[in-house]
Amino acid sequence: MNRVYNFSAGPSMLPLPVLEKAAAELVCYGESGMSVMEMSHRSPDYEVIIADAEKMLRSLMQIPDNYKVLFLQGGASTQFAAVPMNLIGKTGKADYIVSGQFSGKAFKEAQKLGYDVRCVATTKDDNFDHVPTVKREDFRPDASYVHICFNNTIYGTKYGYIPDTGDIPLVADMSSCIISEPVDVSKFGVIYAGAQKNMAPAGLTIVIVREDLLDYAQADMPTMLEWKTMAENDSMYNTPPCYTIYMAKLVYEWILSIGGLDEMKKMNEKKAAYLYDYLDGQDYYVAPVKKDSRSMMNVTFVTGDADLDKKFASEAGKAGLKNLKGHRSVGGMRASIYNAMPYEGVVALVDFMKEFAKNNPKG
Amino acid sequence: MNRVYNFSAGPSMLPLPVLEKAAAELVCYGESGMSVMEMSHRSPDYEVIIADAEKMLRSLMQIPDNYKVLFLQGGASTQFAAVPMNLIGKTGKADYIVSGQFSGKAFKEAQKLGYDVRCVATTKDDNFDHVPTVKREDFRPDASYVHICFNNTIYGTKYGYIPDTGDIPLVADMSSCIISEPVDVSKFGVIYAGAQKNMAPAGLTIVIVREDLLDYAQADMPTMLEWKTMAENDSMYNTPPCYTIYMAKLVYEWILSIGGLDEMKKMNEKKAAYLYDYLDGQDYYVAPVKKDSRSMMNVTFVTGDADLDKKFASEAGKAGLKNLKGHRSVGGMRASIYNAMPYEGVVALVDFMKEFAKNNPKG
Repeated sequence: MNRVYNFSAGPSMLPLPVLEKAAAELVCYGESGMSVMEMSHRSPDYEVIIADAEKMLRSLMQIPDNYKVLFLQGGASTQFAAVPMNLIGKTGKADYIVSGQFSGKAFKEAQKLGYDVRCVATTKDDNFDHVPTVKREDFRPDASYVHICFNNTIYGTKYGYIPDTGDIPLVADMSSCIISEPVDVSKFGVIYAGAQKNMAPAGLTIVIVREDLLDYAQADMPTMLEWKTMAENDSMYNTPPCYTIYMAKLVYEWILSIGGLDEMKKMNEKKAAYLYDYLDGQDYYVAPVKKDSRSMMNVTFVTGDADLDKKFASEAGKAGLKNLKGHRSVGGMRASIYNAMPYEGVVALVDFMKEFAKNNPKG
Repeated sequence: MNRVYNFSAGPSMLPLPVLEKAAAELVCYGESGMSVMEMSHRSPDYEVIIADAEKMLRSLMQIPDNYKVLFLQGGASTQFAAVPMNLIGKTGKADYIVSGQFSGKAFKEAQKLGYDVRCVATTKDDNFDHVPTVKREDFRPDASYVHICFNNTIYGTKYGYIPDTGDIPLVADMSSCIISEPVDVSKFGVIYAGAQKNMAPAGLTIVIVREDLLDYAQADMPTMLEWKTMAENDSMYNTPPCYTIYMAKLVYEWILSIGGLDEMKKMNEKKAAYLYDYLDGQDYYVAPVKKDSRSMMNVTFVTGDADLDKKFASEAGKAGLKNLKGHRSVGGMRASIYNAMPYEGVVALVDFMKEFAKNNPKG
């Protein structure tokens, strides 16, 4: 087995000890006589697994008791519809900040559904090279919620602050930064995330929702998108994605074993600093994101020459540094260095970058 | 490793060779240097996996070229909403047959969404001990579709015929019987199925839809529920449940390796016949389903004494025959004998049933 360093934006690397444990117990889990994949979601063995997953996530993120944790399907894209359908009934309107492609999609989805939503701020004219700075007065005081995407995977930006929305519930898509560092959950009304970056294989979506926000669902919305229905049924209104939840549990367990989110943050900061420090100390590569909006998870850079960018991604791949090509909508390179990427992977990347710069002088 | 016989209605048994293969390549898939769980859904390695999964399913079910195959999330319960949202735009009304709990839920979901739907036939008054017999004239000629649940997991019934709906597209939930035997796909407008019974772990939903039915989606429906959007993006509008699709591929591969659905049907018939023949030849247990509606996948029976039923399920569990308790809404026992249940498992069950009857004479 010769494992590569996989810089994919998602699905992405999982911790090796997690994969090894999953492999070891795949055919037969403990004394159950069956695979977790085969377990009835209503069996005692599985009930322990999903309860542990929730307990561990609550412990990791220090989720207050007045928040429900839901294990759902459909990805963040499904939540783009579920958010307004569950919340906009409060006042009939909502505000959005558009800081990249996915927050733009969330905004458009709410428009498609016919709701009164407004884009309060965007950095589109700057190619999303930073996140907007907003203040309380920017929002409609009677908005049902304010929606943001906390970390923008494609552009490599992240909020360096939590927008102050006053009494208006803040709803955040945290798909690409959840459990990468501690976050004060109580500052948010809803946090949601596709699991396939920092948590588990693709096919699981986490929704963390403050209980008082469960009562505004549209009467004629799909039952499966209703958070309240899912909360009342402990995420088992229908069969949940059982095995993917089990994988998430193994990942939570791994993070707890290495010291929780404080330690995870230190490791992630060390990785990101190593890469950004290198970028800042040379002039072959350009990191387009403004410093105060830099993501700790997704680091974007370009050579300034599309052909060289292409050659970079291709040669890096051959050297065991995979999936460094930037998103098709922006080009260049992107190194996603989520929780499971070891420090050694980032060192290997910087070594490769130096070598590539030396061997490929620009015109 | 001491594997049990798992009679769960879903999630349920997977073929042992499939589990063993998945375990062997879990940490590192082929020459990729990573787990399938870690692969970008847009990577060449993964594109081969999902393309193979579709190719194999098309081959197994002989799906005509004018049908799209979609790999989705959210379970059949999400399709209860997606079906009317995608189809009812054709004429504004639809007809339903209610033959059990899930077809009832599908009907109620369409009502909740505010659509003009009618229940054309139901066997509710007979405790769903058979499926309704319907003829073409029973349906509204201008219905957009007729919805049925082809195999009723909870009651253990199945249509012994394909309802003739004339020109009206027939939509069938096949969650608990898909790929258990050949079926003429061309007789259906849409076939959908949660994968967690015969296909894969939970977290994957298959939709097979005739192309001419992709043009009736409601304008203001969630994008993620639009079949057309998913078809145009080869099920990759967002990140699909990649690993679960890979597991489905392994299952399809296994069925093809043993001779496809003709052979699968023979094996399933042999298992079901062994169990039903025993039930018909004794009078300790009662099989409540009428013979012409018997399911080949879910076999229900009772002792007629709730305490004995409970004891049966409990003692069977201790003997390695798991999850024989009937659904909480109907009681009694249910043996789900999907594709992956070996013949030996059914023999062991009948042996246990004989023994139990001998040791527990009725008052």
